[in-house]
Amino acid sequence: MSDTLTETMNALGINARRAARALGVASTALKNQALQAAANELRKDSAAILQANQEDLKLAEAEGVNKARLDRIMLDEARLEGIAQALEAIIALPDPVGESLARWQVPSGLDIDRVRVPLGVIGVIYESRPNVTADAAGLCLKSGNAVILRGSSEIQNSAKLIHGCFARALESVGLDRDCVQIVPSADRAAVGMMLAGLDGSIDVIVPRGGKGLVGRVQDEARVPVFAHLDGVCHVYVHGAADLDMAKQVLVNAKMRRTGICGAAETLLVDAACADSHLAPLIDALIDADCAVRGDDAACAADARVTKAQEDDWYEEYLDAIIAVRVVPDLEAAMAHITQYGSGHTEAIVTANAEAAETFLNNVDSAIVMHNASTQFADGGEFGMGAEIGIATGRFHARGPVGLEQLTSFKYKVRGHGETRPK
Amino acid sequence: MSDTLTETMNALGINARRAARALGVASTALKNQALQAAANELRKDSAAILQANQEDLKLAEAEGVNKARLDRIMLDEARLEGIAQALEAIIALPDPVGESLARWQVPSGLDIDRVRVPLGVIGVIYESRPNVTADAAGLCLKSGNAVILRGSSEIQNSAKLIHGCFARALESVGLDRDCVQIVPSADRAAVGMMLAGLDGSIDVIVPRGGKGLVGRVQDEARVPVFAHLDGVCHVYVHGAADLDMAKQVLVNAKMRRTGICGAAETLLVDAACADSHLAPLIDALIDADCAVRGDDAACAADARVTKAQEDDWYEEYLDAIIAVRVVPDLEAAMAHITQYGSGHTEAIVTANAEAAETFLNNVDSAIVMHNASTQFADGGEFGMGAEIGIATGRFHARGPVGLEQLTSFKYKVRGHGETRPK
Repeated sequence: MSDTLTETMNALGINARRAARALGVASTALKNQALQAAANELRKDSAAILQANQEDLKLAEAEGVNKARLDRIMLDEARLEGIAQALEAIIALPDPVGESLARWQVPSGLDIDRVRVPLGVIGVIYESRPNVTADAAGLCLKSGNAVILRGSSEIQNSAKLIHGCFARALESVGLDRDCVQIVPSADRAAVGMMLAGLDGSIDVIVPRGGKGLVGRVQDEARVPVFAHLDGVCHVYVHGAADLDMAKQVLVNAKMRRTGICGAAETLLVDAACADSHLAPLIDALIDADCAVRGDDAACAADARVTKAQEDDWYEEYLDAIIAVRVVPDLEAAMAHITQYGSGHTEAIVTANAEAAETFLNNVDSAIVMHNASTQFADGGEFGMGAEIGIATGRFHARGPVGLEQLTSFKYKVRGHGETRPK
Repeated sequence: MSDTLTETMNALGINARRAARALGVASTALKNQALQAAANELRKDSAAILQANQEDLKLAEAEGVNKARLDRIMLDEARLEGIAQALEAIIALPDPVGESLARWQVPSGLDIDRVRVPLGVIGVIYESRPNVTADAAGLCLKSGNAVILRGSSEIQNSAKLIHGCFARALESVGLDRDCVQIVPSADRAAVGMMLAGLDGSIDVIVPRGGKGLVGRVQDEARVPVFAHLDGVCHVYVHGAADLDMAKQVLVNAKMRRTGICGAAETLLVDAACADSHLAPLIDALIDADCAVRGDDAACAADARVTKAQEDDWYEEYLDAIIAVRVVPDLEAAMAHITQYGSGHTEAIVTANAEAAETFLNNVDSAIVMHNASTQFADGGEFGMGAEIGIATGRFHARGPVGLEQLTSFKYKVRGHGETRPK
């Protein structure tokens, strides 16, 4: 049984590598045709996909899956149309492959051209959201990468049919259907094999899902991973912050959507403005239905604040809760972020340009902001089009992972018979 | 004993992370001062370093180390001066840190700036060459990265004194001496701990040495690795190749230096020109004292050619030996490179621009060349200044690894109080 799985998985890897070779040099027009064909197939096949999704939902309900999760699993006409439109949006994005990143001449006479190429084969491991099947396949396809998709068992039926749309679309335009493959087995051992890289056939893993999944992938993967485990994002209200701006940015950063990784989790208020700003900021949060846990100063400023524990500074609530602390100065704010932060996104609110630049330079997170809501931490808001996730690693991709981040590069060197002197 | 080593190594990691934080925002001027101070210290301390090197050589001789390796271990006045000058050359290179890679405005009003930052902490594991101590420390320092050096036991005495020069230099300019640290133990278990990432304290490992070392690092590392295991580089003489140019490029690619990773190991000759080109190319190689192993066609063309075995196509000789094969066409040449190559550097010789572009586009190696010797595969020849190695991975760094490749990036986002709409 396990031998069969090993064979199945290794075949996926070999097929993906072969498909990637041809896809890597496919024209933009051909890749866009495949994306459009996939969008069309999704619309044509919508009845069957929605029926398969009903089966997934029934099984999930029988297993007692909670409401929020059922909602993530659920597809309807509107959501399916959204998935098709997302593919059409990827068509509109520029193709990164072949772009010259830099080109220069060297004294020997050679012309050196650094050119974007696809990464190769991407493994996507995801749960709960069937739309990831199409979103990830679309982004990988456009960036010239073959993809091996492994959705969790709870969306097997939906994912299988969505994958079928891509297989037919690829064949219809003359591309290898193995450019987009799906793991046919619900066996969790398949995930382990992907994390080991399928014998050199997977170049990078992208996990999409909860902390349990991302943590396992980061711990066990023997290939690079694009991911973030936590988004403990900070808003630091500096001594020179305009109170109204601070209120607006803070409440938006915390409350616009509490469940996304760019939502603020901790408010740091500079001692220099605590007398004037702390109580109104807390009031604005509570007014917006946010529970506040604070240090002694915050508790003293508003009786509705409960005492924060050490653990609160590390917490990614993903809920209408915030931790509030008064810090002596800019240095102390940055030290707090270094100690408790997760390297995702942090914002300073200040009218002092020098303090802002110090914060932007010295805070070591993927995204650092001045006078803006942390909720802008998103590939779409960055103008990068769709994203496959946000990475907090320092390697290759950092911040939103869009089409460009799914590429590598190579050097094309053009000469006239040059030989290297001794 | 092992507990002591664990403690020692973890302390190195914690110190490196702390030092990296300050070094990452240090000014270019300060980093250059430290590099100049290190060069000065190397010159001031030369007598002691050369004496320590004599001790290393004596121990190595006693252990029966071969001549080539003894030469790699050996330092003299000239080599030490070369090491100091290499540091001065790094001073002259532009500082990548802080460079804006791209900057754009988005409709929300935000200004988005992608800026280079150091990778963080780099672990360098090397053998035989004491100069790597200074070369790696210099490149890491200039690119704002802390470094943990681990030289093999055979150069412990030399490496320790060279490291001492950096420690004094860093302190003399007011930088943390832990920006450059050396593993104080010859225990091989220290390498394993570095490969595991020292509890999150090492961001990337760079191995410098033989295949045994690189292979172990690639197999065991739990953090990213910048390396190449093999350099099985190909020269493909296309049907439309000028014979004289092909001879010059080929002989240089194979014979200028046979021991470097960019040296050609296999010659592919297109059937379309084999009648006219094969025998003269083989003759030129043998004339240059290169042994030739070939397929049937090559054996038939010259009686001095010995029969190549299947293993020869995979072989990185690093010696005056080449494998020669006649291929039916461009497609077959590229298929051979895909099957047997190592993704390092390949060259096509041809007067046909279309064939050249097809080769440059479709061959999936870090460096692909047209009408140029593969021996140009080198950071210096690419105009990148010094390099810490050549990487054949597809991730983050590919090809020569210079200062730029030792950086990551982050996003600085500047706003005016923007909040994200629902």
